[in-house]
Amino acid sequence: MRSVFLAAAALLPAPAWADGLIDNVTGVTLDKDGRVQRFTGLLVSADGKVTRLLQGRDKRPEKLDWRADMKGRVMVPGFVDAHGHVMGLGLNALTLDLSDTRSLAEAQAKIAAYARTNPERAWIVGRGWNQERWALGRFPTAAELDQAVPDRPVWLQRADGHASWANTAAMRAAGVTAKSVSPPGGRIEMAGGQPSGVFVDAAEALVEKSVPKPSAKDMNAAFLKAQELLLSSGITATADMGTDMDAWQTYRRLGDLNGLRVRIMSYGAGLDDTIRIGGTGPTPWLYGDKLKLVGVKLYGDGALGSRGAWLKAPYHDAPNERGLGFMSDTLIRNLMVRASMDGYQIAVHAIGDRANEQVLGAIEELVDTYKGDRRWRIEHAQVVDPVDLRRLGRNGIIASMQPVHQTSDRTMAEARLGPNRLQGAYAWRSVLAAGGRLAFGSDYPVEKPDPFAGWAAAFTRQDEAGQPFGGWQAQERVTREEAWRGFTTDAAYAGFAEDKFGRLAPGMAADFIIVDRDPTLASPTELRATQVLQTWVGGQKVWERR
Amino acid sequence: MRSVFLAAAALLPAPAWADGLIDNVTGVTLDKDGRVQRFTGLLVSADGKVTRLLQGRDKRPEKLDWRADMKGRVMVPGFVDAHGHVMGLGLNALTLDLSDTRSLAEAQAKIAAYARTNPERAWIVGRGWNQERWALGRFPTAAELDQAVPDRPVWLQRADGHASWANTAAMRAAGVTAKSVSPPGGRIEMAGGQPSGVFVDAAEALVEKSVPKPSAKDMNAAFLKAQELLLSSGITATADMGTDMDAWQTYRRLGDLNGLRVRIMSYGAGLDDTIRIGGTGPTPWLYGDKLKLVGVKLYGDGALGSRGAWLKAPYHDAPNERGLGFMSDTLIRNLMVRASMDGYQIAVHAIGDRANEQVLGAIEELVDTYKGDRRWRIEHAQVVDPVDLRRLGRNGIIASMQPVHQTSDRTMAEARLGPNRLQGAYAWRSVLAAGGRLAFGSDYPVEKPDPFAGWAAAFTRQDEAGQPFGGWQAQERVTREEAWRGFTTDAAYAGFAEDKFGRLAPGMAADFIIVDRDPTLASPTELRATQVLQTWVGGQKVWERR
Repeated sequence: MRSVFLAAAALLPAPAWADGLIDNVTGVTLDKDGRVQRFTGLLVSADGKVTRLLQGRDKRPEKLDWRADMKGRVMVPGFVDAHGHVMGLGLNALTLDLSDTRSLAEAQAKIAAYARTNPERAWIVGRGWNQERWALGRFPTAAELDQAVPDRPVWLQRADGHASWANTAAMRAAGVTAKSVSPPGGRIEMAGGQPSGVFVDAAEALVEKSVPKPSAKDMNAAFLKAQELLLSSGITATADMGTDMDAWQTYRRLGDLNGLRVRIMSYGAGLDDTIRIGGTGPTPWLYGDKLKLVGVKLYGDGALGSRGAWLKAPYHDAPNERGLGFMSDTLIRNLMVRASMDGYQIAVHAIGDRANEQVLGAIEELVDTYKGDRRWRIEHAQVVDPVDLRRLGRNGIIASMQPVHQTSDRTMAEARLGPNRLQGAYAWRSVLAAGGRLAFGSDYPVEKPDPFAGWAAAFTRQDEAGQPFGGWQAQERVTREEAWRGFTTDAAYAGFAEDKFGRLAPGMAADFIIVDRDPTLASPTELRATQVLQTWVGGQKVWERR
Repeated sequence: MRSVFLAAAALLPAPAWADGLIDNVTGVTLDKDGRVQRFTGLLVSADGKVTRLLQGRDKRPEKLDWRADMKGRVMVPGFVDAHGHVMGLGLNALTLDLSDTRSLAEAQAKIAAYARTNPERAWIVGRGWNQERWALGRFPTAAELDQAVPDRPVWLQRADGHASWANTAAMRAAGVTAKSVSPPGGRIEMAGGQPSGVFVDAAEALVEKSVPKPSAKDMNAAFLKAQELLLSSGITATADMGTDMDAWQTYRRLGDLNGLRVRIMSYGAGLDDTIRIGGTGPTPWLYGDKLKLVGVKLYGDGALGSRGAWLKAPYHDAPNERGLGFMSDTLIRNLMVRASMDGYQIAVHAIGDRANEQVLGAIEELVDTYKGDRRWRIEHAQVVDPVDLRRLGRNGIIASMQPVHQTSDRTMAEARLGPNRLQGAYAWRSVLAAGGRLAFGSDYPVEKPDPFAGWAAAFTRQDEAGQPFGGWQAQERVTREEAWRGFTTDAAYAGFAEDKFGRLAPGMAADFIIVDRDPTLASPTELRATQVLQTWVGGQKVWERR
């Protein structure tokens, strides 16, 4: 009977039991217990799932639909980024990028050149500047931007997204004057009684509202660019932390045209858009597990660099400031209750120790009413009071953290926090020790979507130059395997997707990358230099280095 | 080999070559040339398409996945409604319905009873009243509504949707006072210097903005109710004339859960929502040809009953009024240009002769720039100046008309228009004679979504009581077959779907209904009484009378 069955099968299109084989790989994955597992071949079903991991000794099936020979190259699971901004990455890539500028003068030259080569753009929009990196010791000014572009509005977001810089034309277009008032949760920087050109947190909206919105065509192009950047970085699934309606419509548009490759765990930008998108609750997985609205992203405070992070005690380098709490205790609780009622997962941005305390308090008030597998997420959790660290270990809370932030922020964090508050800063090991869960991401486009840089930072606490020697606050390192979990299975768990992707095992998606070295054996420096050669999602090659 | 093949097939789920047969039917359909064609069996493929129409003499295939015996009952193609409001139908069905009330007193009693049985509703919302039907000779008042419900806001839309009636509590909640000003395109009815309680066209928004929006759960329930009403009426595909973002999200939500049965040709409610939904242009057909954003719905004027229709000459029964044009010539042209650039089909509501003239002028200005198969639609086209009728025959314009409106409006139209303007009113035959195209619909929930009533009205110009004898303006009748085309193939054509549904032929969707009589042979009275027994979409039974 068996041979009869197979003979008939040859007449039928894409029968469900026809496997493909990716053979001759140096395969490495984590198993369900977080242990490293090796294999040499991967059997994949027609619907893009792993059927079996093969060892060298295992006989290969004879009947196969297709076969690929990897000639001994290294295969690892595709990475999962627990915190990124998909449209931000794409729009950023299509706009002016100042993240590589090392001085104000260099930035001015780059801005002027961009304006010259893009004469059709009514506004010059960009991001990535960082006055700390420029060693400016202050925010830049509108007048300095006017020197680069006097004739059109210019609007440039800071690297952390928590402040933006306008020229005079932009402030005029937005109607900002000396009489403009800083809104709650934001600050118009002033100089000599005039707006100086920099707008912090909620004050960014005063100018932002006048920036022309990207068209649907721009959004499509930006999404495709972001997807290419993610896949080429080895990321096959990502959380999208703050999907607004236009971004969601873009994902659907591409999904409807079978254009989604990367898998997106979407968190709606605030409660209104979340409910508008999801309606009665999270969506199912759509387009063959490519897109799902999982929950809601809320903001508890701003960022440390712009002193928007909400601290319990004043900033070390600004003794009159404690940062900005975006929500009252009542408001955050009400929003979390409303979202929890409909089964949305909740992810709250909290950077300062006061903001983290607030979220922890809100979760503790809710857990008795909203039971079950909720997976409360705190995004960043960068500065946590040591007395609050243990609270992270309760109620199944996930600390969604970004290892590269630690290396980028180190000097700035020391300045902002002083020496006595570093104990709970970027405290990955302490989170695990308290019984909490970690999920790792890059916060792209704030940082590059490079999981190898994040992985290396997580077990070294050193930057790409190997600084500081021995690692910063080295007691907060995690192991290489824990770090890998953070960027794979634990990041999937954080989005309720651990049964779908994050590791290679029977029944899981065949999402993997082919790389030029074994990341489990490479030195930290070698690990950072890993090149992605191919990226596969659902058993199909979706990107290849050329 | 053949028997081997079939033996193996039994082991496989839903092989693509397995047909089903609906046999022993009295089948009637139009063919592609609009001729009546008869058959006795229908072969259907596994993907829900018609494979073949069988005659009595044709041998039935022996190998079939399934077979249904209809015992000689009549099968006709599912109807296509060219103009309806899906969410309106569902929300209406779940709210207070006054369309069957014959006097103000009866309406007051029904409203009071509804308020008593729905104590949890903060607002009493409903629709369907018609002061003409009540023989009131004037609009009702807030005071008359207060008599029914004094304690809560009440907000009731007129049958044609172009006026609404508020009680005092509703006006108070909305902040409407004696000082409120009628907005452009709308009118607050006044009595003794106070708002009388009725708000016409754009003025409805003054109160509407305060009505609590239906929740996503309400929207789901309303959609499912609408779908059931459509399927039970024999409608298997419909245009949705004015899909806003929340309605679209509802359709997607149900589609994502495989809950769509009826096929929806969606026209976005205005340009902003259309572009926000479609992005770069119309969506593809989604969910197995169940949902597509085809184009945009624009409003050129109001309705005749509320004297919102925009006329060239004053109303016969209100010599100082000419109705309300919603857009300047420049605005309508700009909106149509913007939509045409992205390939959206354009459907403009135009009821009065001045509004129809405006749309025709705009189309004529655009056709040289926006070439190709555009299928410009005018919705309603109720009153067209005879000098403009010939313009309907040019440029492939589709007059999307509602036969039952003619019978419902007859007396009112005579009062509004006087005797000299009836020549171009509901002028179906003249549209065809001029070389224009017709598409027929019901405008549900303004009228019932009953295609048999519409079909009968179209070739008799008589109402359900057979009035007036010989038909009103009988020269504007179309034939029984032309009317059937209007509700099937021509309605599909109007939504760019004539290659998908509307008639039964190989390659078309197996969308059909089983009815209790042959509508091509029934008298008009019998035709109106047709009962739908089963409704099938895509080769699956989706509704059955119990």
